[in-house]
Formats: sequence, structure tokens, C-alpha cells
Amino acid sequence: MRLARIAHPDGVAFASIESDGGDDASAQVLEIAEHPFGQPNFTGRRWPLADVRLLAPILPTKVIAVGRNYAKHAEEFGNEVPADPMIFLKPSTSVIGPNAAIKLPPASSRVDFEGELAVVIGRPVKNITAEQAPAAILGYTVANDVSARDLQASDGQWGRAKGFDTFCPVGPWIETAIDPSDLRITSEIDGTVKQDARTSAMVHKVADIVAFVSSVMTLLPGDMILTGTPEGVGRIEDGQTVSITIEGIGTLSNPVQST
Amino acid sequence: MRLARIAHPDGVAFASIESDGGDDASAQVLEIAEHPFGQPNFTGRRWPLADVRLLAPILPTKVIAVGRNYAKHAEEFGNEVPADPMIFLKPSTSVIGPNAAIKLPPASSRVDFEGELAVVIGRPVKNITAEQAPAAILGYTVANDVSARDLQASDGQWGRAKGFDTFCPVGPWIETAIDPSDLRITSEIDGTVKQDARTSAMVHKVADIVAFVSSVMTLLPGDMILTGTPEGVGRIEDGQTVSITIEGIGTLSNPVQST
Repeated sequence: MRLARIAHPDGVAFASIESDGGDDASAQVLEIAEHPFGQPNFTGRRWPLADVRLLAPILPTKVIAVGRNYAKHAEEFGNEVPADPMIFLKPSTSVIGPNAAIKLPPASSRVDFEGELAVVIGRPVKNITAEQAPAAILGYTVANDVSARDLQASDGQWGRAKGFDTFCPVGPWIETAIDPSDLRITSEIDGTVKQDARTSAMVHKVADIVAFVSSVMTLLPGDMILTGTPEGVGRIEDGQTVSITIEGIGTLSNPVQST
Repeated sequence: MRLARIAHPDGVAFASIESDGGDDASAQVLEIAEHPFGQPNFTGRRWPLADVRLLAPILPTKVIAVGRNYAKHAEEFGNEVPADPMIFLKPSTSVIGPNAAIKLPPASSRVDFEGELAVVIGRPVKNITAEQAPAAILGYTVANDVSARDLQASDGQWGRAKGFDTFCPVGPWIETAIDPSDLRITSEIDGTVKQDARTSAMVHKVADIVAFVSSVMTLLPGDMILTGTPEGVGRIEDGQTVSITIEGIGTLSNPVQST
């Protein structure tokens, strides 16, 4: 199932997206009555996908991200791959949806995109094993771990560099029925491919990451874990559009604006 | 006003604490109908302070913390004081209230307390000036930025070391009418004083910190900013109780338990 959050003619709702032929042009959006966890209830209202606006598919209570989880990306910056997942947090206020603008803050002169597979948690869990992780996962979406590279280096801690409003685009929806272990992930700026890798190159795998994070902190429904970016990250500038595609999930596109 | 969140005989509520003689033994707890932002409405129900249990005075959507904001603490670890506030995030799931146990995680062999003044935000703000900061602040409480010192060093990023469940005790209440600029802050382990400093020694002052953080991320009502710890931090161990007192606010005490 593809779970989305939408602005429709009457308001905002969670929804399921159905496209019989795999064709977005004919896709229908089915309104969910409450929340998308467990077995969703449908209201019976539906719209063509083209008639609604996709929002961030979930508003997480927290966003955890994993650093240096692809060896070739760690090499880009001369870093070693850590033995344990290196985790940091992005504030929930940094989350935006598809097609919303990434706003370049005046404090930074170098902002990068980072395409990533994001895990969306489906139920409250603490101290679970990797074997228990799949049952805790609602699904997967695409994320962009936008990073002010200059501030990341000068601050040391990444709370500012990765925490600006709009620095966590996610979407376009949550795919609940997919194996995350070997998906192609590509990032493009204005149509030029910058990242092209497979999730099979992750150092720490999805189930191990979820188990590890749950050994630290309770994970709540809707919480997101960004699983790291492959090699090929680079600068984004005013007027560009950055698009990240994960095979079997979809494409997350966001324009970039100076402020 | 002293704003608390309490478990009373019938459930959980926000409340105001009134002690005419400044004596906790005779203090009364007045139930607030909804939330404590703006002008609270009172239900008319009240209990003696001794008959309720104090919880974390607010459940923040995010906790921002400032590193190395007292020069003598930065020196303890051979660090320089950063020109800009160095900010990082603690997950909302790490928040506990007064008298709740700090649980030592098996992954760490060295957990430290860090007594800190915490700012509680009262209204949504973005990009405010230091002059506008006081109007954005609901009040102040006491916080303990519990830190797994070994993991802090080995991970580099502090998402794990400072993010374990129970690693953000806050309370006992939010004092809304106090000048934060020169308050004595002391931390004790089992009655032995370990930290004894004044908030006037902060490198970056409260209003400047709030303005700085708001230049990065939107602050929402209830969000907390921990303003850094003075010198004298140290290890906590199973069976000890750590108590942090800030002049004019109160004392936050938490027992320590191995897990």
C-alpha cells in the first residue's frame, strides 16, 4: 500500500494511493478516516491524484539519521565507517513534503542534498532485535538529509547544520510492501544524475539500524530513521530542483530557494 | 507562577503551585483546565502538593541543548568555547520528570550528570531577535543533560550518548516570573555538592541563545532549550540520587538505576 498525507479540496487527510496500471496519471487517492497505523478505515471519498497536493506523508515525533552508512560516501569526506551506527537527530520542524521549497539559510554558504531511504516506524518499540524490526516498520519513503556543509564542519555537532526548517524533505508517500535490502537510489539536480547507488551497499542494514536505535530510545509510530546517503552528494543552489528516486517507492522532488 | 504537570487522584493535568509562605509542606496545587500557555483557566480543583505526583512539567516536541556554554566546563574536557552556540538535540522520548529513575544503559560504562537551566518556549517563533526573546519564553525549569561520556567520545555525534530514554530529567516545575541572568545552580550527588556556579557565567546568554536557535528552527510552545552545564560534572552510579537546584526555581532530584 502507498500511504500519503494530502491536502484535498475539503482539508487534510491521510490517504492510500491506488494506481492500477502503475501510472500516476490515472492514480486515485482514497481518504483514510483517521491515521494510517494498523488497518486503515476508508471514508469512501476519493480524488484523482492530480487533484490533491501531497504533503509530508507523516509528521514524526522525531527524526533519527545515521551518518556514514555507505563506505563510498564516508570516503568522500575522508571519514571511516563507524563500527556502531553513528546517529544524530533532525528536528521535527525541519520536515517538509514533496515539491515544498528547500530554503537556503543566510548563515550557510554551502548547502548539500543527501538522498536517503527513510524507515517509518509503525508501532511503539524499545529494545527490539533485528528479527523483530520488520514488524515494527510501517513502510519506507524517500528523504533528503539537507546539510549546511560549512556549518557541519565548523560546529562539530550537527544540530544546526542539519536542523534548519525545510532541511528534511520526505515523501512522496510511504510504501508499505517493499523489501528495502537492494533498491536503486538515484539523486538528480535539474535532471543530471548525481547519486546512483543501491541500498545493498549500506554498512548497517535496515533491520540492524532499527534494532540499534531502539536499544537507545523508544520509537513511536511515525518516527523516521534516515539510513544514510551514498556517494555523490553535492551542492544545491537557488533555482535548482533536487529529485531523489528510490526504486519501487517513488520520486521526491523539491525546488531550492535562497532566503 | 509555578507551572507543573501532575498525576492527581483522578488523572493527569497541568497545574499551578501556590505556596504562600514559600513552604512546600503547605503548598497547594491548582488544576489548570487545558494547557498552561497564555492565560490558564483553573478548574477549581486543588490538592496539597504532598498528595500529587509531579511529572515532567511539559512534554516538548523537541529539546535543543547548547554545548560548551560555560568556559570552565569547556576547559574540563580541553575544549574551546565556540563563537556561535553549538547546538544538538535530545529526543523527546528522553524526557522524564522529578523522582523518576535515570536508567544506566548497558552500552555505556560511564554516565555523567550535567545540571542545566532550561528555557521553556511559550509561543511559536522563528527568526526573533534577542530583544524579542523574553516574550517568547514561558518560563524556566531545571534540567539534567545526562550523558554517556564514553559513547559521546567514541561516536563523535551525540545522538546516542545523550539520547537514551530517561536521559533528560526536567522539573520540578516551570517558574514563569524569574530573571535567568544570575541564578546560583548547584548539583549534588547524595548530598555532596559537585557543581556550584552562577548562570551569569554563561558564554551565550539566554536571550541570545533563544534568538540563535530561532534563526535555525521554528520553536513551538513547550519546546525546551538546555543552556549548558557549568564545571564539576561527574559520574553517576546505581543507587545514587542526583539533585540539581537552581535558585528561585527549585530542586530536580532523580535516583539512578542500573538496567
